[in-house]
This record gives sequence, structure tokens and C-alpha cells, in this order.
Amino acid sequence: MEKSVSARGSARGGSPEQVFGRVLRSVRESQALSQEELGFRSGYHRTYIGQLERGEKSASLRTIVNLAATLNIRPSLLIRRMERDLSKPVPKTL
Amino acid sequence: MEKSVSARGSARGGSPEQVFGRVLRSVRESQALSQEELGFRSGYHRTYIGQLERGEKSASLRTIVNLAATLNIRPSLLIRRMERDLSKPVPKTL
Repeated sequence: MEKSVSARGSARGGSPEQVFGRVLRSVRESQALSQEELGFRSGYHRTYIGQLERGEKSASLRTIVNLAATLNIRPSLLIRRMERDLSKPVPKTL
Repeated sequence: MEKSVSARGSARGGSPEQVFGRVLRSVRESQALSQEELGFRSGYHRTYIGQLERGEKSASLRTIVNLAATLNIRPSLLIRRMERDLSKPVPKTL
């Protein structure tokens, strides 16, 4: 099992896990896959996919590699997108 | 704690964890840091750094991000180098 992480940060920005989770969700949805289908294809339970997407778990290197393979993208691309989103300034509210 | 992974693969190639571990070692040594010093600066125990470098543990996303920050490189660069080494053909012995 992987370590649980406490949620922190807002809907924008947030912890590496939260940002990674949003990237994962975005890639999954761009391929019109349900959490269930991604879970089935990658060998993880859909609830675990949901926990990753909400940033409630810190994916292991192995999990990142497996999910990327299932999504047909490079693991480094997932991480690169996470970095971009982590470094985005948080928009100010009006 | 992170999941232990069974060692597999040879000195060249191997599991994602083993390849990532060699990349981590290579970057650490290029900065003339000991395992102890990297551990101290990143907040992990030197024995855990050793386990990661030998591919005995699968680093979590959080660990990858923290180690990369300590080494002053992007997490995606560590992953990119792992991918390159994973895709290298294993040289034949004579």
C-alpha cells in the first residue's frame, strides 16, 4: 500500500499529489476512459484511481509507469505536466 | 512506508525502480554528495536513499519531488533519464 497524504491546497495549485491527480484525470478524460476502465486496464481498483485523481495518495514510481503505459504516454510527460501546473501562479479572485 | 519491490533484472536494464535508482545515484555522485548528505538535506534516512538507489523501493511521487528539489533538478528530468535508460538495448556480452 502507498502512503496516504493529507489533502491540502485549493482547487488550483496544491500539493504535488493533487496536481498530479488533476493531470491524470485530464489525460484519462481526454481518452474518454472511465476510472473503472483505466483501473481495469492498468490493474488497479477504480477507487484507487479516484484516490490518485483527488490527490489522496502519492503514486509510486511503479504506479506512475504502469498508468502511463496504459494511457500510452511517457511517464515523464505526466510529471512534466504536473510541474507546469505546480509552477502556474494561482489566479487571484476578483 | 513505501512498498518494497522484489529485485529483478540485471545490472543493465532492469525494473523501473532499478533504473531510477541508478539515475538517482548518478545525479547524486555528479554533485559529489554522499548518501548521508543527500538524506540529510532531503529529510530521508541514508539507508532509504541506499534502498532507492538499489531499486529495492519504489519511490513515491512525493519522494521523487523532494529528492529532485534537493538535487536542484526537475522531477521530470529524473523520470526522463529513467525512460532513456529503460529503453536502451542491453549490450550483448562477448
